[in-house]
Amino acid sequence: MKNLVGAALLGQSGGPTSVINSSAAGVFIEALKQENITAVYGAVHGIKGVLNEDFYDIGQEDLEELMRLKHTPSSAIGSVRFKLKDPKKDPSEYERLLEVFKKYNIRYFFYNGGNDSMDTCNKISKFFKKSGYDCNVMGVPKTIDNDLNATDHSPGYASAAKYVATTFMELYHDATVYDTKQVTIVEVMGRNAGWLTAAAALAQYKGQGPDLIYLPEVPFDIEQFFSAVEENLNKKGKVIVAVSEGIKTKEGKYIPEMYQELKRDAFGHAQLGGTAQVLAEQIANRIDVKVRAIEFSLIQRSAAHLASKVDVEEAFNAGKKAVQAAVRGTTDKMVGFKRVSSNPYKMKYVLLPLKLAANTEQKVPLEWILPEGKGLTQDYVDYALPLIQGDAKAKLVDGLPQFAKLKKIRVAKK
Amino acid sequence: MKNLVGAALLGQSGGPTSVINSSAAGVFIEALKQENITAVYGAVHGIKGVLNEDFYDIGQEDLEELMRLKHTPSSAIGSVRFKLKDPKKDPSEYERLLEVFKKYNIRYFFYNGGNDSMDTCNKISKFFKKSGYDCNVMGVPKTIDNDLNATDHSPGYASAAKYVATTFMELYHDATVYDTKQVTIVEVMGRNAGWLTAAAALAQYKGQGPDLIYLPEVPFDIEQFFSAVEENLNKKGKVIVAVSEGIKTKEGKYIPEMYQELKRDAFGHAQLGGTAQVLAEQIANRIDVKVRAIEFSLIQRSAAHLASKVDVEEAFNAGKKAVQAAVRGTTDKMVGFKRVSSNPYKMKYVLLPLKLAANTEQKVPLEWILPEGKGLTQDYVDYALPLIQGDAKAKLVDGLPQFAKLKKIRVAKK
Repeated sequence: MKNLVGAALLGQSGGPTSVINSSAAGVFIEALKQENITAVYGAVHGIKGVLNEDFYDIGQEDLEELMRLKHTPSSAIGSVRFKLKDPKKDPSEYERLLEVFKKYNIRYFFYNGGNDSMDTCNKISKFFKKSGYDCNVMGVPKTIDNDLNATDHSPGYASAAKYVATTFMELYHDATVYDTKQVTIVEVMGRNAGWLTAAAALAQYKGQGPDLIYLPEVPFDIEQFFSAVEENLNKKGKVIVAVSEGIKTKEGKYIPEMYQELKRDAFGHAQLGGTAQVLAEQIANRIDVKVRAIEFSLIQRSAAHLASKVDVEEAFNAGKKAVQAAVRGTTDKMVGFKRVSSNPYKMKYVLLPLKLAANTEQKVPLEWILPEGKGLTQDYVDYALPLIQGDAKAKLVDGLPQFAKLKKIRVAKK
Repeated sequence: MKNLVGAALLGQSGGPTSVINSSAAGVFIEALKQENITAVYGAVHGIKGVLNEDFYDIGQEDLEELMRLKHTPSSAIGSVRFKLKDPKKDPSEYERLLEVFKKYNIRYFFYNGGNDSMDTCNKISKFFKKSGYDCNVMGVPKTIDNDLNATDHSPGYASAAKYVATTFMELYHDATVYDTKQVTIVEVMGRNAGWLTAAAALAQYKGQGPDLIYLPEVPFDIEQFFSAVEENLNKKGKVIVAVSEGIKTKEGKYIPEMYQELKRDAFGHAQLGGTAQVLAEQIANRIDVKVRAIEFSLIQRSAAHLASKVDVEEAFNAGKKAVQAAVRGTTDKMVGFKRVSSNPYKMKYVLLPLKLAANTEQKVPLEWILPEGKGLTQDYVDYALPLIQGDAKAKLVDGLPQFAKLKKIRVAKK
């Protein structure tokens, strides 16, 4: 355990959430307090900012504005989807990172992201250790997908889940208003893990949710889907369906993939979207009924006006605790959450080895998923309800949220 | 002016809003207090409920639940899109309405809707008068489109506008987060009037809005759109565009109409949607850039969790004042709003002849619209800002809104 003195750097990575900036606020505000931390930097667009020696000088920001980050959605210092090359095959990018870290005497590195980012973080940590460069590397979790391994949940999930549950309740009221038959298919984000789509079950729990919920954990049987829609339509005249963007047939095909070739991003992930639209078209071809496809799209991950207070506070504390742990000498760890009890909700912060979180996806337990799209068991409701409690949003000015506006002063290049 | 004694009936009509139920609460709660009103009914699915003698007995509902209607989105007693036949050509439906009104001794009729509904209301009022049946008929305005004539604004608009402005601000943060080029095209409701799309200018006013805003009031020039997107993309790397679903080329064609035949509803209105999607495809065909289409869809009109307090209260008062006026002997009028001043915001309730509101669409003044999609003038901001002030939402239970659950006890058929 070494008492390191030097600069601290935060990078934000992957898709935005409502609370990734709350973690940034936690890291920045705590780091600015620490005597061993000589400067606090924000990497402009995550790891790309490090490679480019492109940093914001957080020490020049006002504390009040940093506090506003708690309620400002998305990634204030810029995020990135960028996969570093495998250091075993080509260490040049890692060598460049090391060079930059040395040049700016960065001794504390915090990376806020999902499992790809924790993998990056893990590799950087191992590379620095092997190179003999002392730097405490800490992961701060975030993902609306809630698929990070080894932690009870991840910041960002609860606020997105609260958005999904609330909006399904509102759509329930809207979509059931006429006396004509109608099918409404709503697409929720979630590539391989159905956590976010599962939040529709919270609206069901309130008696104002979808009739059918399909998660990617279970192979999607399109014939079962058609019969379930028809059965509900005959019984109630209205059907609301929640589908994850990532549902796949038992042959492993995404729904839009049955109709077009998929694009893939730098991580090799299929770029999805259009699942609800394709299903809606298929229903319209089969049944004479009004069908509507709705996509929550980017709205669901940045709806900070509907953030969960539990989520905002936990995200902030995760950032803060990452700094405190690093200053105490911890490295190579991610701040995680361990649930003590659900009712009353008690949770403790834990430090998990980075490699535990890296790249392994935590999915919704199969035993929580009811067959034939019927929803989730009470276990899921008990798990999720404590997370979405409380309101925490930006102060309103002109009736609209007052989001943080950072000065964004660049650190002079050395 | 006649002192009528009998039942009061409310119908909800047209597309839902976040506050149509707040007006219902105003009508119901005020009507239940009135001595001359012997029973309070809710028409099940608007005018169809009247034709079917299908009513809820509001007298059997709990006051507390009726108060919850103030913050419950959509149409609690069911809405309808149904065009009565022209009484000059075929008076049979109007005769049926008269028969039902007589049978249940309905002497007060309140119809809550947009301009089609005010037209229905106007025709019913005139037909009853001609038939010598005493019934005070009052319109209560509602429409997210804000296109009702002769009133400064309509309940429902402000809450939807607050949703649009807030969500554009959040999307601004989300859509500008990567250092890669991106075009985001967002489609907002509004068939012929661009009021709701104009609300994106409030996000612009906060410096966190779209770069381009296209309203249906101005013919859409697709070539100008392509150059404007390209110009903004070259300058900033990101472009966010707000388009009304109802934009048309100067030849009068809707954007999706260029690619498929449009369906029309019972009123002969074209069923739109897909405008953003089609424009996104056109951009993707021309420019090598990531393009995303987002539709606010039904979400924008039922997002009660983001309702404007001004709107909720005005909607409630409009219902209340309609009852008070009717009991005083007023008929054939719609409750409207007359603005006294914008800063500070002062407004008075007025009673407008139904025929003034009926069928005439109030559009965004052309002089408020900047050329080439550049947005709206300060006049619009001054007009709209006072309307979106304050929060007013349902109490949270389990972290989720507690919406009204009416008993919905049917009135026994006579």
